[in-house]
Amino acid sequence: MRIGQGFDAHRFASEDAPRELWLAGLRWDGEGNGIEGDSDGDVAAHALIDALLAAAGLGDIGALFGVGSDAHGAGMHGADMLRETVAHLRGHGFTPTSASVAIVGNRPKIGRRRGEAVAALTEAVGCPVSVTATTTDHMGFTGRGEGLAAIATALVEETGR
Amino acid sequence: MRIGQGFDAHRFASEDAPRELWLAGLRWDGEGNGIEGDSDGDVAAHALIDALLAAAGLGDIGALFGVGSDAHGAGMHGADMLRETVAHLRGHGFTPTSASVAIVGNRPKIGRRRGEAVAALTEAVGCPVSVTATTTDHMGFTGRGEGLAAIATALVEETGR
Amino acid sequence: MRIGQGFDAHRFASEDAPRELWLAGLRWDGEGNGIEGDSDGDVAAHALIDALLAAAGLGDIGALFGVGSDAHGAGMHGADMLRETVAHLRGHGFTPTSASVAIVGNRPKIGRRRGEAVAALTEAVGCPVSVTATTTDHMGFTGRGEGLAAIATALVEETGR
Repeated sequence: MRIGQGFDAHRFASEDAPRELWLAGLRWDGEGNGIEGDSDGDVAAHALIDALLAAAGLGDIGALFGVGSDAHGAGMHGADMLRETVAHLRGHGFTPTSASVAIVGNRPKIGRRRGEAVAALTEAVGCPVSVTATTTDHMGFTGRGEGLAAIATALVEETGR
Repeated sequence: MRIGQGFDAHRFASEDAPRELWLAGLRWDGEGNGIEGDSDGDVAAHALIDALLAAAGLGDIGALFGVGSDAHGAGMHGADMLRETVAHLRGHGFTPTSASVAIVGNRPKIGRRRGEAVAALTEAVGCPVSVTATTTDHMGFTGRGEGLAAIATALVEETGR
Repeated sequence: MRIGQGFDAHRFASEDAPRELWLAGLRWDGEGNGIEGDSDGDVAAHALIDALLAAAGLGDIGALFGVGSDAHGAGMHGADMLRETVAHLRGHGFTPTSASVAIVGNRPKIGRRRGEAVAALTEAVGCPVSVTATTTDHMGFTGRGEGLAAIATALVEETGR
């Protein structure tokens, strides 16, 4: 059994550049603007991807999906990136057995749709994935509403190819 | 075996609103003012609670204890919340086997009472719980002394009810 | 099997105080100034040390290596501190089985030398150690380039002395 640690943070897009808000494998309508950047900005999925790749010793999200608008991962949704990550792990003989992500930020309100988020991420990863959420009492960049952060961890087993 | 990730951050109360400082299951006298809010503001206990609930797939601290001054958890101390959390896990067939929390902030000085903190948290959770502490070299909200943060992880076993 | 969580953050030294930049067991030439302080400022190694000590219930880096310019750890490189940490664990009957660190900051660009970093840390710890890296989209102290942070986790087994 091997363990991995992942972290990600993304900035909310400015209000004059409206974008869909994606987080934890879900689209959040009516919860404010989305994240700027080349992917859908799903920090929860991205932190989980790093945790899974780390647990298997297979680099990180930048190595697998590239960086920037020309990257393989540009425009991909978090759940699809997670599925591709898990296929990559399985191709190298690793199977995820448990994963968890803590989301830090003011919005969206995760608790209202936690069941959906857990279901989406668990389906994508193929093992139990849990989601917690907290704010930072108006402190720091998450507390000022500049963006979102996520910390993730994962366990994988070496099952062989 | 399943893994969980937890995070929490709380703001120190202003000096004209004196409060007891509670952290890692202990009251810290002579280490400055406490945390604002409806609970005792024990970020270490709260992050551990999220890690334990996440590992068991049972939501997070907001789901179990509520949010705000009417919440079930309002006024509760961290160690008591941890005990209730573990009872909740056991009622769903999960037993914590190991947990760890990293506290980030300028005060209190954890190292002086680490043994007490470890003993309090270990007694509350019923498995080995460790406590590390660090500062952020005056950077960020913890470095400016605005508040405290904690990152926790936990392992649980599904032992059945 | 026991789990540990570690965190560390260090501030970049000012440009008029040039220092070597050390991170993840490597010296990074041509990637800007190093970290201020008494150690080499290797946040990745330091976070891993806290995770390993936490997993074994043996305190944290401040307890083992001291704090300040008179400390036992002053002037030591991260990889050497990791080796001493693992020897300390083994002396208490614990063996690391897996560890992972997520580095947060603008520079150096970890991906270019990830293989070297993984090799250096894995050799120092004696079990698979993985390294992920991310930025924070110019948010927070890492995003402003004030310093570096790292979050680590580790698994250890109690193997006896």
